[in-house]
Amino acid sequence: MTVGTDWLRKRASLTPAAPAVIFAGATVTWAELDARADQVAAALFARGVSAGDRIAALLSNGLPFVELAHAVPRAGAILVPLNTRLSPSELAWQIDDSGARLVLHDDGTAPLAADAAALGSAELAHAAKTRVAGARPSEHPAEDLGRVHSIIYTSGTTGRPKGAMLTFGNHLWSAIGSALNLGIDPDDRLLACLPMFHVGGLAVLLRSAIYGNAAVVHESFDPERVNRAIDSGVTVVSVVAAMLSRMLEARGDVPYPRTLRAVLLGGGPAPRPLLEACAERGVPVVQTYGLTEAASQVATLAPADALRKLGSAGKPLFTTEMRIDRDGGEAAPGDPGEILVRGATVSPGYWRRPDETAEAHRGGWLRTGDVGSLDDEGYLYVLDRRDDLIVSGGENVYPAEVEAVLLSHDAIAEAGVYGIDDDRWGSVPAASVVLRSGASVTADELIAHCRERLAGYKAPVSVRVVDALPRTAAGKLQRRLLREGYTVSRSP
Amino acid sequence: MTVGTDWLRKRASLTPAAPAVIFAGATVTWAELDARADQVAAALFARGVSAGDRIAALLSNGLPFVELAHAVPRAGAILVPLNTRLSPSELAWQIDDSGARLVLHDDGTAPLAADAAALGSAELAHAAKTRVAGARPSEHPAEDLGRVHSIIYTSGTTGRPKGAMLTFGNHLWSAIGSALNLGIDPDDRLLACLPMFHVGGLAVLLRSAIYGNAAVVHESFDPERVNRAIDSGVTVVSVVAAMLSRMLEARGDVPYPRTLRAVLLGGGPAPRPLLEACAERGVPVVQTYGLTEAASQVATLAPADALRKLGSAGKPLFTTEMRIDRDGGEAAPGDPGEILVRGATVSPGYWRRPDETAEAHRGGWLRTGDVGSLDDEGYLYVLDRRDDLIVSGGENVYPAEVEAVLLSHDAIAEAGVYGIDDDRWGSVPAASVVLRSGASVTADELIAHCRERLAGYKAPVSVRVVDALPRTAAGKLQRRLLREGYTVSRSP
Repeated sequence: MTVGTDWLRKRASLTPAAPAVIFAGATVTWAELDARADQVAAALFARGVSAGDRIAALLSNGLPFVELAHAVPRAGAILVPLNTRLSPSELAWQIDDSGARLVLHDDGTAPLAADAAALGSAELAHAAKTRVAGARPSEHPAEDLGRVHSIIYTSGTTGRPKGAMLTFGNHLWSAIGSALNLGIDPDDRLLACLPMFHVGGLAVLLRSAIYGNAAVVHESFDPERVNRAIDSGVTVVSVVAAMLSRMLEARGDVPYPRTLRAVLLGGGPAPRPLLEACAERGVPVVQTYGLTEAASQVATLAPADALRKLGSAGKPLFTTEMRIDRDGGEAAPGDPGEILVRGATVSPGYWRRPDETAEAHRGGWLRTGDVGSLDDEGYLYVLDRRDDLIVSGGENVYPAEVEAVLLSHDAIAEAGVYGIDDDRWGSVPAASVVLRSGASVTADELIAHCRERLAGYKAPVSVRVVDALPRTAAGKLQRRLLREGYTVSRSP
Repeated sequence: MTVGTDWLRKRASLTPAAPAVIFAGATVTWAELDARADQVAAALFARGVSAGDRIAALLSNGLPFVELAHAVPRAGAILVPLNTRLSPSELAWQIDDSGARLVLHDDGTAPLAADAAALGSAELAHAAKTRVAGARPSEHPAEDLGRVHSIIYTSGTTGRPKGAMLTFGNHLWSAIGSALNLGIDPDDRLLACLPMFHVGGLAVLLRSAIYGNAAVVHESFDPERVNRAIDSGVTVVSVVAAMLSRMLEARGDVPYPRTLRAVLLGGGPAPRPLLEACAERGVPVVQTYGLTEAASQVATLAPADALRKLGSAGKPLFTTEMRIDRDGGEAAPGDPGEILVRGATVSPGYWRRPDETAEAHRGGWLRTGDVGSLDDEGYLYVLDRRDDLIVSGGENVYPAEVEAVLLSHDAIAEAGVYGIDDDRWGSVPAASVVLRSGASVTADELIAHCRERLAGYKAPVSVRVVDALPRTAAGKLQRRLLREGYTVSRSP
């Protein structure tokens, strides 16, 4: 007496002729996608894949990834999406840790996959060739929402990556929770331009099948292409702040069509100037706070609150509970503390990491390591990733707060704030910034700008101008790398 | 790791100031409804109600019913909604069968409740007075989707009523399945004009809380009032065919506003002329097939298919599976058979009726007793309630088919067809009809009308003109009563 787990099969039975995936100029219907997933699942069975096996995907966004995301669970196996930007040794580590017996790649990722496989024992296969034409799998895995659908390694901005297990129930309740917040329209079109190997991108695919909405898949993020997709009827977009910023820049003064009904903005606290620019231009941004271990969204601002609660990530989804922990008790409104999460979207734990699982799940709650506060109406404001917290002379400094002040300066396009060691204070904030093209400003001017707007201990002691800030593939700022003096060059 | 069961509490935390119930000219917000349900739950606790107790509601549609629908589960008890049109002895039987310890009534139902209570041992209480001002319940029942939320006696057009147990999961998955078909919009307004003591009316209330949509509650069905509510912004309406017919008649030529996005049409097969009239007038009708034992909707036509599949009840919801059984096997497309249902919306069984439960649930499927067929695209056409099937000389006659032909005659407003005993053929069809006001026609003309359009054995052998047809409170035609020569007078 539960719901089915083969969402693609059900969807194909309901709306077989409706568009499922729009990719590279071609449209695949739900019936076609279902048949393609069958062919891939049959090929996996033919290779001896059995229930619970881990199958890794080292794939760019595209139809093969979409097929695999449905075919691997259909074969009873567990999908392990791998980040295509990792080094061979990092990949080899995750492949080994997950115990994946097979790594599927595409043309673009073939060399990387080969380098990673050379360091371990997993087999390699080309995703597009892993299919048996016309076949349907003869076995059907148990329909159990508690079964593990995917293992996703958390981005690892700190420490060694851990594989968060996400069940069918986690993904389904996440999709339902999101629907109950944003609404769903059978005619929606969802843009999948976030990497699908991250939970945010994978969630778009799964929501697409559950809702019956076409996914418009982009191989990578290109702001002008995203803008064109919106003009062509995409109604819901999932992006991170850096992407949205580039979309607006590319857009110029042309308004977005009214068919664009939601821009889900994740990947960390958003700079207030960006949110204000969107509000001015009528871009329907809804900020969201989420994490891999909760199958993406935890809290998302409701569209109706977008302007009234600018800067907030809203309230927890219908299927999720949240609280702010301060020294073991519930934080008062306005007081920051660690964000705790529980509910149907929360991962049962880390793959083969009982200690880390126990450490993260205490008293029935998942400790996110993120810092936030609730206002007196219960709206979440995410202050920072706790690991990035700068403790200076006993005072807490939240990098995002300092970054927001830097970003309010006309000359600044991007800002990253991090702690550097200090003999007297333990740690003090420092900043790296990217200037707007043609802009010019000195470090002293920027420090003065911060001192005017923040308590003295929060102002950076030094500011470096860099070409670009280090970010994960999902667009999250990697402050740890800044701290380590890492810089990246702007891509050509 | 499940979702919560107190949907009102969660909803009130998400959108406290949004309208929850609009009734008798007043608007109650989610926060207010939550507080009112607390007061009622506290009063139930104060009366000694404990987990699993049955609490009967003999109430007209209104705010007290809405409060109880949330307060009874909040107190850990089980809601037993009673049909206010039953006789005292029928009510007494259901109260006794459910073991309800308390019957809540309103002013209008007080005499009926007193008569029923006199026949048994349940206590009576006035719903509006069963509350403790300012109180909140101190106990909280287990959050378990498998817990029984309500026991609803099936309408009993045949045999003795049985109490279908519906769990929180049944109701929640029903709401989710409906949302995945019709879409949801945070700004939707749902009309609750079906009696809330039937599953179709109760489902509107629960969807309202889960979706966060205001429920516009009408104490009883009045076609002009419903039309006015639609003009005032109701977007989704749930009705049965007889109601819709009266709405159109009252409407005249005035078009419905575009804000009306779905008219969920349940309660049995709809006459084709009615569906055609709606299609011509642009009324967004979506036919649905459902039953109490499956928490209302089983299959519902998707809005996109409304015109292409006129007359069909669509495909099973995302959370439900359906098949057509013919002699133990799956019926071929076009062939009629018994509709079987399984999935997350299906009741675990009848209250204290293990034999009837086992009889209805065979091989994991619920046998509905209803007859339908699937077309070659898998769309359901409900032919009839199987109990009404007329077998005449070895040929099956489905009353709804004959009724549709009668209804296509200009003079006919309503038609009911039923079997009467016949020495030669076993059973033959007969009809009772209600004429349109001012219309005139003879029985022979109507029989000739049918003979022109149907195989000879399907045409009624006699036609009686009556003032009104017997219907359940939910509007379902009661063919058994017609067969027994029962007639009802049109209400004054």
